[in-house]
Amino acid sequence: MTQKPLDLKTPYLLFLGDAQEDGLAKTAFGIHEWCPEKCKGQMRLDGCKVDLGLEDLNPVEAKTVHNVGTLVIGVANLGGYVPDNWVAPLCGALRAGLDIAAGLHTRLNDIEFLRETAKQLGRTIYDVRQTTQELKVGNGQKRSGKRLLTVAADCAIGKKYAALAIAKEMQSRGMAADFRATGQTGILIAGGGIGIDAVVADFISGAAEMVSPENAKDHWDIIEGQGALFHPAYAGVALGLLHGSQPDALVICHDPDRSHTAFMEGFALPDMETVIRRNIEAAQLTNPHVKVAGISVNTSRMTDDDAKFYMADLSQQTKLPVCDPVRTGMNNIVDYLVHDR
Amino acid sequence: MTQKPLDLKTPYLLFLGDAQEDGLAKTAFGIHEWCPEKCKGQMRLDGCKVDLGLEDLNPVEAKTVHNVGTLVIGVANLGGYVPDNWVAPLCGALRAGLDIAAGLHTRLNDIEFLRETAKQLGRTIYDVRQTTQELKVGNGQKRSGKRLLTVAADCAIGKKYAALAIAKEMQSRGMAADFRATGQTGILIAGGGIGIDAVVADFISGAAEMVSPENAKDHWDIIEGQGALFHPAYAGVALGLLHGSQPDALVICHDPDRSHTAFMEGFALPDMETVIRRNIEAAQLTNPHVKVAGISVNTSRMTDDDAKFYMADLSQQTKLPVCDPVRTGMNNIVDYLVHDR
Repeated sequence: MTQKPLDLKTPYLLFLGDAQEDGLAKTAFGIHEWCPEKCKGQMRLDGCKVDLGLEDLNPVEAKTVHNVGTLVIGVANLGGYVPDNWVAPLCGALRAGLDIAAGLHTRLNDIEFLRETAKQLGRTIYDVRQTTQELKVGNGQKRSGKRLLTVAADCAIGKKYAALAIAKEMQSRGMAADFRATGQTGILIAGGGIGIDAVVADFISGAAEMVSPENAKDHWDIIEGQGALFHPAYAGVALGLLHGSQPDALVICHDPDRSHTAFMEGFALPDMETVIRRNIEAAQLTNPHVKVAGISVNTSRMTDDDAKFYMADLSQQTKLPVCDPVRTGMNNIVDYLVHDR
Repeated sequence: MTQKPLDLKTPYLLFLGDAQEDGLAKTAFGIHEWCPEKCKGQMRLDGCKVDLGLEDLNPVEAKTVHNVGTLVIGVANLGGYVPDNWVAPLCGALRAGLDIAAGLHTRLNDIEFLRETAKQLGRTIYDVRQTTQELKVGNGQKRSGKRLLTVAADCAIGKKYAALAIAKEMQSRGMAADFRATGQTGILIAGGGIGIDAVVADFISGAAEMVSPENAKDHWDIIEGQGALFHPAYAGVALGLLHGSQPDALVICHDPDRSHTAFMEGFALPDMETVIRRNIEAAQLTNPHVKVAGISVNTSRMTDDDAKFYMADLSQQTKLPVCDPVRTGMNNIVDYLVHDR
């Protein structure tokens, strides 16, 4: 019932390379934040300035002392390529008995020496951006279990974080819930999932159907959203994911300071009412009972008082629970889901 | 200005294999219908029962007498694979000096003997389903020139045919107009285009932007639609194509006899008003001035009188020109576009 398209061996050793700043190690920080129990140590090359506060381990120590299963690449260079000075240490990890997982633009399996070393040793290198699963086109047929998808007016606005926080809140209450990853960092955090924006266009909703397979009636899949219906480059991904996820509940992720689509020129973001209406209308194709279960906002640039006022006001306007996953946690949204159904 | 992502050498020799029925040679019939001037002959294997009415030529005759550039595979087997008995004749075509183009599921380039023969001879085998162009993500920036996209409530409902008919009507009036192909048969007809449903999901709208590049102010690109916003498998493709095409005009393709999504279970089609509203709303993201320019219907199962009545009624209800590309031609829609702008 909970078969995952990808199953990374745990626990992890997080590879930080020689990263010079925390911003380049967002993946490592994300994995450490959301699954500390899986993270047994960090592996740093000479000159690395990033520190997760984990024990520095080499692959042999990681394997023999902590039974680590996978070295996870937790850094990206600008450009996403693999620097030459990573190859020897990554081979060392394979020789020590570890698999390797990465979500880089450049596939580790495209580096012949790494690929051949892994093959000879019987290890697996997971390039998680590209799924190796055989995909099907979507069929739109109802699957049992409950599903929540995070959506938004734009990309890079907190959809992964909100989904992780909701799954965690549900799990802490003893509810049956899984975070379902659709992007590379999410996949490395979850240890499974499909990079939905890297599948062939015909298979977007089919891949989304595989990400949240049939499950027990009361089980919640909390699915990481991608793209946005209002994004001139990524709306197709967002719509296919919405249809394939057939969500019972949507959570709208919102940044009160963002007025225009990020990294694009000239696209004003729609208002909240439009974001809700358009997502609901589209989602009704595969789940006529879909509802919005709340709004997840980023109030990090507000004072406590301002945030409190802002969230209360937005909640009153929309008649929906409003949470900030960092400031308030996702209690109100999960309460709403529990009491509404 | 009219750079195409793919440029097949013309004229064509149409390969019919040993097809037993016309239905398997839809691609050949389509190419012959829409670009008879490009079709110098047909090539049939023993036992072939399909006849386009073209001269039977072997590749050497085609090359030496008619200067044919490309052998175009105009048939598909059920399953889309390449039968063993095609390989020798296809190699013969390469040796005679022809390129080969195909839109099959199985890539001809995956057949080693064909690939190597082409390589040795300096010929090109075009598997047009998969583009070889380097794609970019969409940027949403306005391009000069005018664009029309055919859309619908469902797949396989006449979007390619309508686009071809509109482009032909415009060309017959001396208007600057090109059909822009987004699927394999369309690409073989046009000699260029991108199979939009075969690109990586991140690049749908970027690929659509490449399909209809910047052009002269009064030039019309008539773009072949794909999928449908209301299709549980292919809506992502449709939305990305809609955004990347940034159409000035939409033509809605409609089959009065179809009540449910084809080849799917349990999806009733939306009414015309919803089809129009949802497509216009979505298209406004990249072109706020988008309008519906008409409805293209398939009245092939009606009598002349019934069709006339039906089309007049639909036109009155929607206040839009209604055409059947086969029965009436696209005059009214093109008139509407000419007078409206």
